[in-house]
Amino acid sequence: MGAMSPLESAAQQARQEGLQLRQLSIDTRNRFLEHLAHNLSQHHEQILQANKQDLEQAKSEKLSAPLLKRLDYSAQKISESVQGLMALSRLPDPLGKVLEARLLDDGLELFKISVPIGVIALIFESRPDALIQMAGLCWKSGNAVILKGGREAIRTNRALFAVIQQTLAELALPQHWIVLTETRDEVNQILKLERWIDLIIPRGSNEFVRYIMDNTRIPVLGHADGIVHLYLHDDAPTQMAVDLVVDSKTQYVAVCNALETLLVHQDSAIRLLPELARALQAKQVRLKGCERTRAILPGLEEASEDDWNTEYLDSILSIKIVDDLQKAIDHINTHGSHHTDGIVTLDVHAAKTFMDLVDSADVFWNASTRFSDGYRYGLGAEVGIATGKLHARGPMGLEGLVTSQWRLFGHGHLVGDYSSGSKTFKHTDLGQQDYFKKWIT
Amino acid sequence: MGAMSPLESAAQQARQEGLQLRQLSIDTRNRFLEHLAHNLSQHHEQILQANKQDLEQAKSEKLSAPLLKRLDYSAQKISESVQGLMALSRLPDPLGKVLEARLLDDGLELFKISVPIGVIALIFESRPDALIQMAGLCWKSGNAVILKGGREAIRTNRALFAVIQQTLAELALPQHWIVLTETRDEVNQILKLERWIDLIIPRGSNEFVRYIMDNTRIPVLGHADGIVHLYLHDDAPTQMAVDLVVDSKTQYVAVCNALETLLVHQDSAIRLLPELARALQAKQVRLKGCERTRAILPGLEEASEDDWNTEYLDSILSIKIVDDLQKAIDHINTHGSHHTDGIVTLDVHAAKTFMDLVDSADVFWNASTRFSDGYRYGLGAEVGIATGKLHARGPMGLEGLVTSQWRLFGHGHLVGDYSSGSKTFKHTDLGQQDYFKKWIT
Repeated sequence: MGAMSPLESAAQQARQEGLQLRQLSIDTRNRFLEHLAHNLSQHHEQILQANKQDLEQAKSEKLSAPLLKRLDYSAQKISESVQGLMALSRLPDPLGKVLEARLLDDGLELFKISVPIGVIALIFESRPDALIQMAGLCWKSGNAVILKGGREAIRTNRALFAVIQQTLAELALPQHWIVLTETRDEVNQILKLERWIDLIIPRGSNEFVRYIMDNTRIPVLGHADGIVHLYLHDDAPTQMAVDLVVDSKTQYVAVCNALETLLVHQDSAIRLLPELARALQAKQVRLKGCERTRAILPGLEEASEDDWNTEYLDSILSIKIVDDLQKAIDHINTHGSHHTDGIVTLDVHAAKTFMDLVDSADVFWNASTRFSDGYRYGLGAEVGIATGKLHARGPMGLEGLVTSQWRLFGHGHLVGDYSSGSKTFKHTDLGQQDYFKKWIT
Repeated sequence: MGAMSPLESAAQQARQEGLQLRQLSIDTRNRFLEHLAHNLSQHHEQILQANKQDLEQAKSEKLSAPLLKRLDYSAQKISESVQGLMALSRLPDPLGKVLEARLLDDGLELFKISVPIGVIALIFESRPDALIQMAGLCWKSGNAVILKGGREAIRTNRALFAVIQQTLAELALPQHWIVLTETRDEVNQILKLERWIDLIIPRGSNEFVRYIMDNTRIPVLGHADGIVHLYLHDDAPTQMAVDLVVDSKTQYVAVCNALETLLVHQDSAIRLLPELARALQAKQVRLKGCERTRAILPGLEEASEDDWNTEYLDSILSIKIVDDLQKAIDHINTHGSHHTDGIVTLDVHAAKTFMDLVDSADVFWNASTRFSDGYRYGLGAEVGIATGKLHARGPMGLEGLVTSQWRLFGHGHLVGDYSSGSKTFKHTDLGQQDYFKKWIT
C-alpha cells in the first residue's frame, strides 16, 4: 500500500473520529446545533464579507445568472440557515430507535437498532447554505462528513467551516469528523475512497449527478432526471385540471418536480386542451404536441420522440393524447424518470390503478406535482430526493442518513443446542423497553 | 437502439408483466404458493429423476464433493421446499403496509406505502432449492424475477421451472414474470440490463459475489466475506468463553457466520488460552497465533498480517492478544468484514461500548456468532445477508424485497397557494386506517 494522499488520511481520520459521535447524547448533539446557530449569527458580518468577495470574483469571471443567484448568501439566507439549525435541533433523535425486538429464546434477545451510516460525502455546487445544512444533518445523525463545495464559493465555505470548527472547539467536541475539500481534483479522489466513504450525496445539475454515479463504486443517493407527468383522465374536472397543470408547470420551472409532459385521455382532449392552451400560453409556456394534439390545437409545435424523454427545466410543455389509462401508465413507465407522476380524476378505480401501476417514487391524485418535496411532506429536514429504489425513495429526511444494526444479547447461548434439538426457538415479540433495560446498571 | 437479445426481451416482458402482480390480492398470491407446494409434491418423482441425471453427469465430470452435496436435491430437500412454501404463504403480506401517514393540509393526505422493488435477478450456483425459495419470495413480494442457475443443475432447474409454469397456468396467473436462464454468457448479459433489472442477489462463493459486484451498475445485495470475531474481555467467564468459541468456530465451519479470528484481552489470556487450545484442538481446529499468544501457547503456528484479513471457511482459527477493549474494536473495524462480531463479558459498560463502536451488521453479547441467520432471527424467510449498509443490513427477510412509494391524495391542491402564504401546512399525523378508507367506494 502506498502513502495515503492528504484527503485519504483525512477521510480515514473522519471515519475513526466519527465513531465518537455515536457515544454523544442527543442533548450534546442538539446543544452543538444551537451553539452553531448562535455563532453563525455572531459571525454573519465575516460570512457576508467572504461571500461578497466570492460574488465579485464570480461576476468578473462572468458566471451565469442562476449560478450567481445560488452563490449569493445574503443576510436573509444566513438567517434561514440559523433557523434551519434550530429546527433540526428540535427534531427527534434518529439514532438508537428500536426497530425490531424479539425474544429468540429465554435469555436470548434480539433487537434491530438505528445507527449512523458512517462517512457521508456531500458534493455540491455553489450553494453555501447546503454546507451548513448537511453538516447539521450529518452531525445530528452521528455521521462523519466530507464536504466538497464549489470553487466559486471557496471563501464563503471557508468562513462557514471556520465557524463550525470554532463551535466544536468551544464545546470541546471532536473536530476531525468533518472535512472540507475544495479542488476539482479532490472530487475524483473522493469517488475512489470506497474504503472510507459509505455514501455519496451529490447535489447539482443532472450531468453532474450522472457523472458522479458513473464514476464511483460507492453508493450514490440522489436523483438525476425529473421527467414528471400529469395524466388527465376522461372525467378530469376542467377547472381542477387547468389549475393543477398550470401550478405543476409554472410555479417554478427549473426544479425536478416541475411538470414536463402532459398526458390527456382522448375522450377529454377536445374539452380540456383549448382551455389548457389558453391558460398556459398566458403564462408564456411554449407548447409542443403529438399529432392528435395538433389536430385539436392547430399551429402547435410538433413533439418528437425525444420530447417524451426530455426534462426541459424551462417554460416548455409537451402534450400527448393517449387512448386510455393503461396507455398513460405505459407511457410514464417507459419515458418517465420514476420521480413524481400524478393523475387527475374523480374515479377512485382509475386512481388506484394509476397508483398501483406507475412505478415512481411519488404518485399523486388530484394534487400539484410541486408538492414532491421534503419540507412540504413535513419531513422536518430534507436530505435529498432519491429516485433509486433502494434504501430511500422520494424526498428523504434524516432517516436517509441512518442504517440499522442487529444487536443480540445472550447468556452463553450456543447454536449447537438448537441444531441438536435440545433447545428450540421461541420467537416471540419483545417491547422496545426491553432494549433500554439492557443498559440499566 | 439495436435489436434486443432474447434475454433482454424476456427481462422487459418480466418487468411489464410483473406490474400485474401488484394488483393480485394477498389471498391469490398465497393460494399460488400453496398450489405450488402441492404440485412439487405431486411431481417429486420427475424432479428426483432430473436431479439424478444432473448428479450423474456432475460425478462423471468430477465436480467437488461440496458442490455435489449442494446439487443433491433429495426427497427430504423437496419436502423442505414444500414446507418452506407453506410457511411463506402464512407470513404477513409485505406489500401495502402504511409506513407513514400525514395530513399536509385539509383534504391533502400523504402516505408512504410498501411496494415491490420491480425486477430481481437471482444468480445462484448449484443449489436447486434456492430456485423454489427465491421464486416464492419474489412472488409473495410482487417482484418479477430472473433466475440464473448453475449449468450443473440444468435438468433439475428445468423440472422445477416446469412445475412453476404449470401451477401458474392451472390458476390462470401471469407466466412471464419469472424467467429461467441457464448459460454462463447470460450472467454477463444480466449484469448489463440496468434498464430492466432493479436488484441483483447473488449467492455463491466470495469470488463469485465479488465478480458480480465488480461488473455491474445494478445494485447488488449480498455479502462477500465473513471475517467474524469474538473478543474475550478481561472478565470473560472461562467456561462460557470456551463454549462460545467452540460453538462459533466448529458448529459449521464453511459458513459466513463462523468465527475466524479470536481476540483476547491481555489480562485474561493466561487464564483462558490453555483451556481454549485444549477444547479447540480436541475438535481438530488448527490454531495460529500472534507473538504474545505463542508466548503462552508455545509451538503454535505464527499468524501473519494476512491471517487477520482471511476468511478461512475451514477448521483454522487465528488468535490475537489485545491490550484492551479499544484495541479489540480497532482491530475488528480495520480487519473485519462488518458481518458479525461478538464480545464475551459480564461488564455492561464494555458490552455497550463494543456494540456502539463496532461497525458491523450484527453485534453480539455472550452469544455464538452462528446465530447470525434469518431463520434463527425468526424472520420467517431469509432472502440473504447484506453486509452493505444501505437498504438492508444483516440477515434480511421479505422486507429486503420491498421498497416504498409516497402516495399523495388531494382535491386540486396547488403549491402556489402555500408559496403565496394564502394557505399553510398543518403537518399532523394520520392513522393507517385513513389510507385504506381512500379506496372504499
